[in-house]
Amino acid sequence: MSKNGSVAIVGVGLHPFGRFPDKTVEELGREAALEALADAGLSYRDVQAGFLARVTPAGIGVGQRVFGELGLTGIPVTNVELACASASRGVMLAAELIRSGAAEVAMVIGVEKMGRGMLQPAGEKSYQALLGLTVLPGIYAMMARRHMHLYGTKAEHFAQVSVKSHQNAAHNPNAQYRVAVTLEDVLHSRMIADPITLYQCCPTSDGASAVVLASERRARQLTTTPVFLTAWAGGTPMFDPDEPGLSEGPTAMLAQKVYDAAGLGPSDVDVCQVHDAFSPGEILTIEELGLVPEGEGGPFVWEGGTEITGRLPVNTDGGLLSRGHPMGATGGAMVAEIVRQLRGQAGPRQVANANVGLVQNAGIGGVNVLALQT
Amino acid sequence: MSKNGSVAIVGVGLHPFGRFPDKTVEELGREAALEALADAGLSYRDVQAGFLARVTPAGIGVGQRVFGELGLTGIPVTNVELACASASRGVMLAAELIRSGAAEVAMVIGVEKMGRGMLQPAGEKSYQALLGLTVLPGIYAMMARRHMHLYGTKAEHFAQVSVKSHQNAAHNPNAQYRVAVTLEDVLHSRMIADPITLYQCCPTSDGASAVVLASERRARQLTTTPVFLTAWAGGTPMFDPDEPGLSEGPTAMLAQKVYDAAGLGPSDVDVCQVHDAFSPGEILTIEELGLVPEGEGGPFVWEGGTEITGRLPVNTDGGLLSRGHPMGATGGAMVAEIVRQLRGQAGPRQVANANVGLVQNAGIGGVNVLALQT
Repeated sequence: MSKNGSVAIVGVGLHPFGRFPDKTVEELGREAALEALADAGLSYRDVQAGFLARVTPAGIGVGQRVFGELGLTGIPVTNVELACASASRGVMLAAELIRSGAAEVAMVIGVEKMGRGMLQPAGEKSYQALLGLTVLPGIYAMMARRHMHLYGTKAEHFAQVSVKSHQNAAHNPNAQYRVAVTLEDVLHSRMIADPITLYQCCPTSDGASAVVLASERRARQLTTTPVFLTAWAGGTPMFDPDEPGLSEGPTAMLAQKVYDAAGLGPSDVDVCQVHDAFSPGEILTIEELGLVPEGEGGPFVWEGGTEITGRLPVNTDGGLLSRGHPMGATGGAMVAEIVRQLRGQAGPRQVANANVGLVQNAGIGGVNVLALQT
Repeated sequence: MSKNGSVAIVGVGLHPFGRFPDKTVEELGREAALEALADAGLSYRDVQAGFLARVTPAGIGVGQRVFGELGLTGIPVTNVELACASASRGVMLAAELIRSGAAEVAMVIGVEKMGRGMLQPAGEKSYQALLGLTVLPGIYAMMARRHMHLYGTKAEHFAQVSVKSHQNAAHNPNAQYRVAVTLEDVLHSRMIADPITLYQCCPTSDGASAVVLASERRARQLTTTPVFLTAWAGGTPMFDPDEPGLSEGPTAMLAQKVYDAAGLGPSDVDVCQVHDAFSPGEILTIEELGLVPEGEGGPFVWEGGTEITGRLPVNTDGGLLSRGHPMGATGGAMVAEIVRQLRGQAGPRQVANANVGLVQNAGIGGVNVLALQT
């Protein structure tokens, strides 16, 4: 099926996530891109427009250097940045080029080499910074505490997100952490921002992702079973001082837009990727997406609802927590996992009968929600 | 008229270009944006998507901070970078969103605060750097010398570009240099890279630009005389070692695409903005755009052909050389000047009967050509 325009995702690729101090940004990006092109059955000459997503400074024209590694075909390449949601925004812009007719094939490469301590500069100049919330775990911890207060969610529920995440990542050769951990391991790791312990924080990572998009016409030449990007919406967090919530994010509003545009409801979603930079992210986001009722996210996770065999498998590849989070690459990895799930190519991580997938990718200053369908 | 989709430019604004060490990037961007919105007769609430163009590092989410100064409406904002061609690429992406139907009104803010020496890091890792061409004036000087060798172009021809540029900027209250200079002043200023003297180099600048785009439907509600963005094309410079040219740029190829898409030929162009970061830029680019025959650019400039009263007025606002070149803002200023010319609002700089305008904006790693028409 195809709805709301005709944009397909025809190739995905990753450079494994982890620590690769000896590789350049160009090398990481090239490897992911070549995998995505091979996956699509295309050569770089077929690509008509490029986007490069990265967050940490990598010099003027990093996209020109990364795409330049693939060939000198003269296509327009644009560097995009939207913090941790950069690559999914790149995918959305590429999709607009295809929908507008400007390109038949476009590629988004997301890449990052992160130094230590890269996650510091959040909330600068905001009311949050005035309150001392200058690092992200503190912000997630406040939202978690509010959720605990309102709904009786327990620290164990958040910890269980990380247990499940590590279980999934153990089956993902591209993941940064491929070892299972126990609930006790998670709960007794170093406290970072109560209730968030060290094992409930995403690592700093190097890595790259690539996504090749094509018009429906081109996609049908390449495969009989394309995956379509049927709807997408992006927004900026707002803060309404009169109505403080668990989150400032526009996720719920964006999800509704995407459901409406794709003709879907939350009950249609078979598999989901959400932005679990810290463990509360999964519980809060599946509620914002309408996938579980408000306040029930904790018990839902605790009872295995988001496991691969659960009612709503979430972050089947290990998510940010265990797959890793090279910021500019993360959104592309989220899309890649959903594509592999919808194609039935996820191996030991495969969700049965997955036909509708959702991606929620959040960053400082921007959130994107995307719907993918077979 | 409107061709090839229906994208209009309904508002333009600038923060004056110059040195503004006491203003923040957010303040520069906000002032340009408010002027563009007022020019359009729109409020910020009407804007459905935003792009922020900047080149020098300004922290993660600079666009979120600049747009956040205008209001918290939750629209998607994307940071884009394409070196000195960032803002015109932002305009192209905004135009794609309007053409695809994703937005009816979009705004591009370009902003830059430049430190001293910002133009150093060109050509890193390329064959050019291996030859010692690590700064841009050297690259432009080589192209100028080749042009002199092939066509008999004289140092005075290049210098005259700067004389004309300063004449135009003297009539532009937003320009960085608003004083006329003589040919002798230019030729006898300090030699930078023969034949390019100091007065033939653009300054380092602070400043901001803003461009508001709208669908044709929305534009016709706002004005009876909209300016349309009728065609645009972007590309990446290539180097063919078997066919070394005056330029590695794709300008000629992009111009042909734009002419074809807009149903125009070079003789239809009434007014033009080209990327004169250094004086040879004007002479080389008007040839690449097909506006004067190859090799004749020097005498054409010398005889006043690119003056406001000439056959082909170029850089009527002073161009990069005299208006200034705050990198992320430059493409927006180019578009703004063409819009004002096509509306007949350019005051003492007004070109008579201007109905078709061209913008060529070049950066390390990317070139954009845009056609605007009444």
